[in-house]
Amino acid sequence: MATPETFTLHTTDNTARRASLVTAHGTVETPAFMPVGTQGTVKAVDPVDLTNVGSQIILGNTYHLRLRPGDELIRRRGGLHRFMGWDGPILTDSGGFQVFSLAGLRTMSEEGVEFRSHIDGSKHLFTPESVLSIQRNLGSDIMMVLDECAPHDADRQYTENSLALTTRWAERSRKAYPEDTGPGLLFGIVQGGFFPDLRKMSAEQITSIPFDGYAIGGLSVGESKQEMLDMLAVTAPLLPKDQPRYLMGVGAPMDILDAVALGMDMFDCVLPTRNARNGTLYTSQGKVNIKRAEYREDDSPLDPACGCYTCRTFSKAYLRHLYMARELLSYRLNTVHNLAFFLDMMQGARQAIEEKRYLAFREEYAGVFADGSAETL
Amino acid sequence: MATPETFTLHTTDNTARRASLVTAHGTVETPAFMPVGTQGTVKAVDPVDLTNVGSQIILGNTYHLRLRPGDELIRRRGGLHRFMGWDGPILTDSGGFQVFSLAGLRTMSEEGVEFRSHIDGSKHLFTPESVLSIQRNLGSDIMMVLDECAPHDADRQYTENSLALTTRWAERSRKAYPEDTGPGLLFGIVQGGFFPDLRKMSAEQITSIPFDGYAIGGLSVGESKQEMLDMLAVTAPLLPKDQPRYLMGVGAPMDILDAVALGMDMFDCVLPTRNARNGTLYTSQGKVNIKRAEYREDDSPLDPACGCYTCRTFSKAYLRHLYMARELLSYRLNTVHNLAFFLDMMQGARQAIEEKRYLAFREEYAGVFADGSAETL
Repeated sequence: MATPETFTLHTTDNTARRASLVTAHGTVETPAFMPVGTQGTVKAVDPVDLTNVGSQIILGNTYHLRLRPGDELIRRRGGLHRFMGWDGPILTDSGGFQVFSLAGLRTMSEEGVEFRSHIDGSKHLFTPESVLSIQRNLGSDIMMVLDECAPHDADRQYTENSLALTTRWAERSRKAYPEDTGPGLLFGIVQGGFFPDLRKMSAEQITSIPFDGYAIGGLSVGESKQEMLDMLAVTAPLLPKDQPRYLMGVGAPMDILDAVALGMDMFDCVLPTRNARNGTLYTSQGKVNIKRAEYREDDSPLDPACGCYTCRTFSKAYLRHLYMARELLSYRLNTVHNLAFFLDMMQGARQAIEEKRYLAFREEYAGVFADGSAETL
Repeated sequence: MATPETFTLHTTDNTARRASLVTAHGTVETPAFMPVGTQGTVKAVDPVDLTNVGSQIILGNTYHLRLRPGDELIRRRGGLHRFMGWDGPILTDSGGFQVFSLAGLRTMSEEGVEFRSHIDGSKHLFTPESVLSIQRNLGSDIMMVLDECAPHDADRQYTENSLALTTRWAERSRKAYPEDTGPGLLFGIVQGGFFPDLRKMSAEQITSIPFDGYAIGGLSVGESKQEMLDMLAVTAPLLPKDQPRYLMGVGAPMDILDAVALGMDMFDCVLPTRNARNGTLYTSQGKVNIKRAEYREDDSPLDPACGCYTCRTFSKAYLRHLYMARELLSYRLNTVHNLAFFLDMMQGARQAIEEKRYLAFREEYAGVFADGSAETL
């Protein structure tokens, strides 16, 4: 539950916001990026690595943890924090996004969504109530309501029905987890597809329910960057100023920085971690594909402007060798760097907002990452 | 090259030895176990992990590094230490063992052994001279001569010819790298298969060449544990007392402890690292197969007697979950623990020899690892 101290808006720079969010496991300084820890670990790194790169909060996936090792098992271990050795805040998603991706393996109804496990084919039902019960078993600091994330090509009628269902589910969610329950915060999710008036309708409906924060969903589903920004520009101003705003599943550095400019506070994406494992690394000079032959004998650090363990210790030549040899250490060193890059960027953004020079800060990155394409996963 | 201070025998307990070996990158306290870093990394761990678990010296594989990324490339990077960020001693093998494993892809001659790369099929020739040149490019602290490791089922005639060739190659090796050359030490290798008199003959021939240390080769090729110990009991006493003795490719905890009792000083094996990746973990209570269902809800540390990061931080239940979910973190946490177990065991062995209670120390482990089978890789 939120208290008057849960969210503090420190300052703004145009519409960009610098705030703090207090959770049961510590305070998150925003704007903040949340590394994704799908199966009880951020892939390839440990909790010490996460702290060293500057992670304040991580995300856990309800769908995956429900299926393996099981939320009840994690509850009996003392919760997800204790199970995985991470003492900081954890936000858990509702599992809905993963379930809706299981085309053909799921059945929607007013009650919820029934699906088969991708691991063993077993049948499961996610309802607004059950996903909160799972997230409470995990010991989540910030829980997300079950929503329907409409596909990018959804037509107006589908989207309208979908957002209405999402609102009914949001009402059931708040009822299942009333405001004075437990230490976990509960965030609502605005949907509405790519129809500005439906985004507005959804925002009005969802923000009329007293959640502890509001997320914008449905914006990492394959749209162009411009479509994303258009929807964001419509929706963000409709969210309460005195509560945290979370843009789900976004994104690439410029996507995040543009969303910060539009007033969003929190972000998550598998991009830095997944790209790390694919050898695509983010640096102050742009993206580096570490397998390129030009790095074969390059003794310079991956990013001379970066202070992470990888950049302090190893050369591009070594990182390329590890990648080409498919060595396990490659995944970890690359992940450490990409997370450090994203988290340093967020630290820079926070400082720039405090110093009222956010747009200039954004411009520095735009000079490096000016590809203009939405890059969300 | 060795100096009078290179090797110091501090004390003995029966035939077990407690000594120090000085290399260009630091001193190795023996008996010592060397984690195997085949491709410029000990699989799944970084140099900080290696230091934290108590590694004094690691092994690099000449065959693999020659093929990828290439020894000349590593020389241009300042050598293997700098390339991989490991400042401690490195022993490199000759590459012979790997080449002789390439059945059908290699051709032996007096000159050396020609083979095709397992990576791209390219042709290469290893000679006694060329493998030293490669090891010098790597900047090895302890180089090994090229030898022929006869198969376990080799007959007497084959073995006799093979050891004679190994001796001629050893003579060429010393000539190619005379005693006053460079900072690297050069070790000879005793062969002779499973014929006691041939082991004796090889030991006499090899120790008549002034190497900086002597290894026993050919004893991790599929023999029974008793066969290994029989050959070791014949060969070890024939090695100079005032020089280091290295048993190559061995082995499981009891194999190492038995070889220490017979007077061997140095060991290497992929067993702790490879088994870690397969979920087989060594503990003070014996071997643990972490995927077993009995650990599903086991909140205890993997080994309560172990102080490694894995045991200090995580439960068996979490390690099992990571293993079952095939998470990358599983490989690292398991490797950290298995290396810590082997290196703690060596530390215990050193202390026990100093305190003249080595056989009692060995008995403690025998009570836990009493499976009697040779377990070498």
